[in-house]
Amino acid sequence: MPITLDQLNAASTDAAAALLDGLYEHSPWIAREALAQRPFRSLAHLKHAMARVVDGSGAERQLALLRAHPELAGKAMVSRTLTAESTTEQGKAGLADCTPAQFEKIQRLNADYNAKFGFPFILAVRGPRGTGLSRTEILDTFERRLANPVDFERAECLRNVHRIVEIRLNDKFGVSPASGERVWDQLEQLAQFSDPGFKDKGQLTVTYLTDAHRSAAARIAQDMREAGFDEVAVDAVGNVVGRYRALAPGAKALLTGSHYDTVRNGGKYDGRLGIYVPLACVRELAAAGRRLPFGIEVVAFAEEEGQRYKATFLGSGALIGAFDPAWLDQKDADGITMREAMHHAGLPGTLEAIGALRRDPAAYLGFVEVHIEQGPVLTELDLPLGVVTSINGGVRYLCEVVGMASHAGTTPMDRRRDAAVAVAELALFVERRAARDGDSVGTIGILNVPGGSTNVVPGRCQFTLDLRAPNDPQRDAMVADVLAELQAICDRRGLRFTTERTMRAAAAPSDARWQARWEQAVQGLGVPLHRMPSGAGHDAMKLHEVMPQAMLFVRGQNAGISHNPLESTSADDIDLSVQAFRLLLDQLAHETSAT
Amino acid sequence: MPITLDQLNAASTDAAAALLDGLYEHSPWIAREALAQRPFRSLAHLKHAMARVVDGSGAERQLALLRAHPELAGKAMVSRTLTAESTTEQGKAGLADCTPAQFEKIQRLNADYNAKFGFPFILAVRGPRGTGLSRTEILDTFERRLANPVDFERAECLRNVHRIVEIRLNDKFGVSPASGERVWDQLEQLAQFSDPGFKDKGQLTVTYLTDAHRSAAARIAQDMREAGFDEVAVDAVGNVVGRYRALAPGAKALLTGSHYDTVRNGGKYDGRLGIYVPLACVRELAAAGRRLPFGIEVVAFAEEEGQRYKATFLGSGALIGAFDPAWLDQKDADGITMREAMHHAGLPGTLEAIGALRRDPAAYLGFVEVHIEQGPVLTELDLPLGVVTSINGGVRYLCEVVGMASHAGTTPMDRRRDAAVAVAELALFVERRAARDGDSVGTIGILNVPGGSTNVVPGRCQFTLDLRAPNDPQRDAMVADVLAELQAICDRRGLRFTTERTMRAAAAPSDARWQARWEQAVQGLGVPLHRMPSGAGHDAMKLHEVMPQAMLFVRGQNAGISHNPLESTSADDIDLSVQAFRLLLDQLAHETSAT
Repeated sequence: MPITLDQLNAASTDAAAALLDGLYEHSPWIAREALAQRPFRSLAHLKHAMARVVDGSGAERQLALLRAHPELAGKAMVSRTLTAESTTEQGKAGLADCTPAQFEKIQRLNADYNAKFGFPFILAVRGPRGTGLSRTEILDTFERRLANPVDFERAECLRNVHRIVEIRLNDKFGVSPASGERVWDQLEQLAQFSDPGFKDKGQLTVTYLTDAHRSAAARIAQDMREAGFDEVAVDAVGNVVGRYRALAPGAKALLTGSHYDTVRNGGKYDGRLGIYVPLACVRELAAAGRRLPFGIEVVAFAEEEGQRYKATFLGSGALIGAFDPAWLDQKDADGITMREAMHHAGLPGTLEAIGALRRDPAAYLGFVEVHIEQGPVLTELDLPLGVVTSINGGVRYLCEVVGMASHAGTTPMDRRRDAAVAVAELALFVERRAARDGDSVGTIGILNVPGGSTNVVPGRCQFTLDLRAPNDPQRDAMVADVLAELQAICDRRGLRFTTERTMRAAAAPSDARWQARWEQAVQGLGVPLHRMPSGAGHDAMKLHEVMPQAMLFVRGQNAGISHNPLESTSADDIDLSVQAFRLLLDQLAHETSAT
Repeated sequence: MPITLDQLNAASTDAAAALLDGLYEHSPWIAREALAQRPFRSLAHLKHAMARVVDGSGAERQLALLRAHPELAGKAMVSRTLTAESTTEQGKAGLADCTPAQFEKIQRLNADYNAKFGFPFILAVRGPRGTGLSRTEILDTFERRLANPVDFERAECLRNVHRIVEIRLNDKFGVSPASGERVWDQLEQLAQFSDPGFKDKGQLTVTYLTDAHRSAAARIAQDMREAGFDEVAVDAVGNVVGRYRALAPGAKALLTGSHYDTVRNGGKYDGRLGIYVPLACVRELAAAGRRLPFGIEVVAFAEEEGQRYKATFLGSGALIGAFDPAWLDQKDADGITMREAMHHAGLPGTLEAIGALRRDPAAYLGFVEVHIEQGPVLTELDLPLGVVTSINGGVRYLCEVVGMASHAGTTPMDRRRDAAVAVAELALFVERRAARDGDSVGTIGILNVPGGSTNVVPGRCQFTLDLRAPNDPQRDAMVADVLAELQAICDRRGLRFTTERTMRAAAAPSDARWQARWEQAVQGLGVPLHRMPSGAGHDAMKLHEVMPQAMLFVRGQNAGISHNPLESTSADDIDLSVQAFRLLLDQLAHETSAT
């Protein structure tokens, strides 16, 4: 019989520990220590409490925990010899009936892995959906993780241990993240549409107004209708707009959504998660026949990534009247203008029709956006959700330092004008300067000595600067310091430099009240609150210009990698974000009806 | 009537200052202050003394000196309007009869130059040979120097001021560097031979056993015969060997020489200077019918640069039995084997013939080599000659640091594994570590983030290390420190790295007695002694393996640039090197007859 949280909270320590027996492999101390944090407000709370115990237990106990796990290679052996333990896990492990070649490969990977790391390879083989990874996925993951730095891989193993425990805990408590699973499945379905040249390679690429893009729009519209939206339509720029009416006509609406286009060979969650999470909430409302004192307008933005045309944020921009007329004549790589692409997609392709998409801010309460984090912060903190404080403002520069190329053998150290060493000095300054702010970031992403030779002191060094901060004054102070340092370095070393600013975007700090609503929702789930800036740009930046906005981040797996097929998040985390969105709606309903 | 040095040394300060009037433009204080260093042992001594006065006078007086010079553009104007001062300089300035286009260009360059530097463009228009630069050369130099860093260009102007004074001083004293001029002219003649595809572009390229190479060999042989060598022959690898017999048969010989092949689009002095300087001395001996107690064997080495075949130091290597038999089958870019190239050049192309070139060290006193510095040291010190203490040992590595690529916006500073910042840290360490030794050098010449993007934290960074020191233990200690630092940086930052050693060459310290002979020769000329390591490799490294060796460096102009058409040295400096070689021969004669 499943345990309940009340039962766990009420039990004696010994009894409670017994209830949680078998979660962490041969390590009952973890659950036992976590019990000190009772009462648990949610399973998420309990999971996080145990993760924190592991986190604070030191490297030695962590290693012991890892080494308490059987080797996956051993499991494969067991599977092959058909003497498998008859556990649910084993059945879903995907390692049954390995081919001899796969078995040999796993044995080799295992030997290399043990030699490099000194602990067994641990993988939550039931995966992010909970239904099991394929053999190929397991082998690919094994191979990929073999290349990880040792400390990173140890943390990755611990994260997998926590994921295994999460699944065991769900089993123990007889719960399953149903909404999260549905969203996960819907996003999987949506990912079947991909542009030509990518689809056949199994890659996800959906760029503006391609056939795949239009199929995706049609699928989203269908999913919206099926969820119970009152009105669903594709607008003049290809946005899919779903409206769920308020209790009374004339009420304001909550605006939400994100984009459904992708970068080339991108991930399944970037953007799309922010469409399907509110969709899940509307489904619940519609199923219950419930109306809120405000409408809900979910917009699946047609374009955010600027891949086919240089028209980033086209979809959300259209809602604030920020559509650049010149875009219509812009050509893609095949020479097709955007206007032609629009006509081909059955859109009017006129500025009149696009201009009509502009929203009246007075008709809206505000804008919220759920998005996968696209960074490593939440996964490293073992937190499923994070509340965004600001979308960082950013500046980019393309720079070159010019010194004098000279013979590496015959030019004494004190007579050099080495352009690359100057940039090296700047790189370390950027690192220190950004770190000093705590939440600024600074990156030299391109770094190159053009035509460099082993035996020539670099006469030129080209590089980029990417500097971001949660607010513009903080960013500008950092930029000023970095450029002043570049000047000082070049003056000291007798070098010249050029800088060209290639991008400047204002920060979009979250609206305090809306941010507080997300914070309340997260805390309502019993999940520890974590506030963080968004380093990447999002559609919310555009809406920010006309209405209050705030974002919720969902943990990404694989070190938070994004714009990459490895982008991933679990059904459990998605489910929590659906729950958080539901709490936000409830709060809002409460506030709106109270006024 | 020309002044003499004795006259100058004996005169009162006022009288001596009057004798030196007009050397530095409107700046008689320079010669006057230099007089404190009398007695001058040579014109070179006087020149250096004045250069040192300028050097120590501070930035303000240096700028005043520069600004005391008329603008070259003004001179062009004067030339064009045919109201030229009738000075020798003006006549040789090469700016007479500018075309309107050239005149316009010089006016524009002049305006840009003044705007950038705030002092007039100064160029010793009589050039390194003393006979005047062409208009094109002047305009090209103007344009090129406009790109210099400000402090570097100020020093370059001062160097030109010193060169103008040098020429004026020669005029005043009625002397001309006749031997230097002859060598200069011979090297100019020799530079007429160049490989196909380069000659028509006015570029000098002479690679192993091409037609141009064989023509150069023939010219060298002819010049040797004309100089009075007793035997001149081309040997089995293409070396041109000239022998000047000793007073008595059976006496040992002094071995000297350098290479006549060049890099692609190289300079006229690299290698070749070391053939023609001893040739000038033999010419003098032969003209005087003088024999020394030792023979002189000058070898023009056929191959040092390893351009057509990967067989660096082939020419000098053959003399020590270091010819690799595999080289004969090596193919050039056109698929021609070295054996075929030898046959085509009329050489036997057999290992027997090549093996027979091996010298018996007992037959030689030692090996000396004169070479252009190929670095900035002597020109920055205003010194025409330098004595080499050692040919540096070197090690090269090809390296890669591997971190984890991640989003530049979403990856906080404390969660990055930035490969490029790690290499930046190493670059600064290499710079400090090499500088600590004083005479070591360390260079990261290739530096690249492969596939880098502005908004991606570098996951990989490729770079090279080139580490050199005057002796192997010093070099190895530096290499060990650098590699340990790379390890420490990567450990601290959680990164991996790979290193591949691509080269390792032993240092060749000068023989103490032979180095002392060069030092005595330089001091005998009244030129301040400067000892320095050779950062580049030379033929002397090969002979070093079987006999004592020591090298003399001659100042290069244009910041000492080499492997470049801008490589240059003056007739005056060459003349001093001929004189130094003569003094070395005299010392040796004295020592040999004394024993």
